[in-house]
Amino acid sequence: MTTDATETGAPARRPRGRPGHDREAVLRTAIDLFTRRGFDATSISDLAAELGVTKSAVYHHFPSKEALLSAALDEALEGLSSAVEAAATATDGERSSVRLRTTVEAAVRILAGNLPAVTLLLRVRGNSDVERAAMERRRHIDERLAALVRQATAEGDLRGDVDPDIVSRLIFGMVNSLADWYRPDGPLREDALAATISSLLFDGLRPPRPSGG
Amino acid sequence: MTTDATETGAPARRPRGRPGHDREAVLRTAIDLFTRRGFDATSISDLAAELGVTKSAVYHHFPSKEALLSAALDEALEGLSSAVEAAATATDGERSSVRLRTTVEAAVRILAGNLPAVTLLLRVRGNSDVERAAMERRRHIDERLAALVRQATAEGDLRGDVDPDIVSRLIFGMVNSLADWYRPDGPLREDALAATISSLLFDGLRPPRPSGG
Repeated sequence: MTTDATETGAPARRPRGRPGHDREAVLRTAIDLFTRRGFDATSISDLAAELGVTKSAVYHHFPSKEALLSAALDEALEGLSSAVEAAATATDGERSSVRLRTTVEAAVRILAGNLPAVTLLLRVRGNSDVERAAMERRRHIDERLAALVRQATAEGDLRGDVDPDIVSRLIFGMVNSLADWYRPDGPLREDALAATISSLLFDGLRPPRPSGG
Repeated sequence: MTTDATETGAPARRPRGRPGHDREAVLRTAIDLFTRRGFDATSISDLAAELGVTKSAVYHHFPSKEALLSAALDEALEGLSSAVEAAATATDGERSSVRLRTTVEAAVRILAGNLPAVTLLLRVRGNSDVERAAMERRRHIDERLAALVRQATAEGDLRGDVDPDIVSRLIFGMVNSLADWYRPDGPLREDALAATISSLLFDGLRPPRPSGG
């Protein structure tokens, strides 16, 4: 909400195209510093120094450190939110288990494609209004996924012996662990990763049983 | 290593039995503060104030903040390490997949029973020698689990279409997520949780297929 406030005003003096100076570069570098050093331990001065610009150049794009955090968390939340909403409101008659699988694979791709922002999101502990708002949105996403698990279980497509709320937490647990170990520049591509995780979750670790056995 | 250094020396003046003042209480409160506020943001003064004792009463048990962190991380690592070592060195002829399942269930119980210390361990980023040593021990545990997954796959008891290293990361991802959501005072007991997680991992989310189908 606050992150776009600086986009208006003083357009004539806006230093366009200066290297390391545009809004996107400021946000990338802020996410990197917040993740490596922690939000509290990072100042706007640190950020400006890392970018090689003045503090006012940073403030030109973001009015405060909180606005930077908010933009970073929004980035992580937007994609996840859209994927879960799309699955929750689908009206094409697809079974819930199919929509759940689609959602899990979309979530894997979103996480793998936005690792720095997602890592920041997963470390948020509710220490400020911005962090609490992000946690509230995460809870909403969790609830949507849990509802989908409940529907799929009620339709008989998921085993009925485990509490759907526990199942959805464990699904997100496995998916979110990507932030700790996945390397986008490694050999495992996002699509293969998404297929692997959904297959492990739905089919388990055992080899396929011979039919009729 | 350093954490036992203060156990010797000046025993005559040691204030035994004073409430909130023994080594165990100091460690519990430190883990709680480190987890809630962060290690960097917590001082020995904060810890002493929280315990209602003097700083020197804290130093009586732990020579430094790093020694407290080291003791906390040791606590989280000891149980995990033992469980994985026991499984890795078992000589009773049990199949690797059975030992893997036993290890996963032991890991769940250890995490669920030591949540504050484990939460601290999982947030460690390698910012000091103590943190780097803990990360090295975690890596060693991860490698032992990955070796067990490889053996079980080679024995034909796990599906062969997923890289065992990815499998072991995803197993730990699901198990470690407990630190974010499991409540030891909730309705789900540790044993049921361990059985649920290992069953989901091995058998997947689908309901059992009818035999012959």
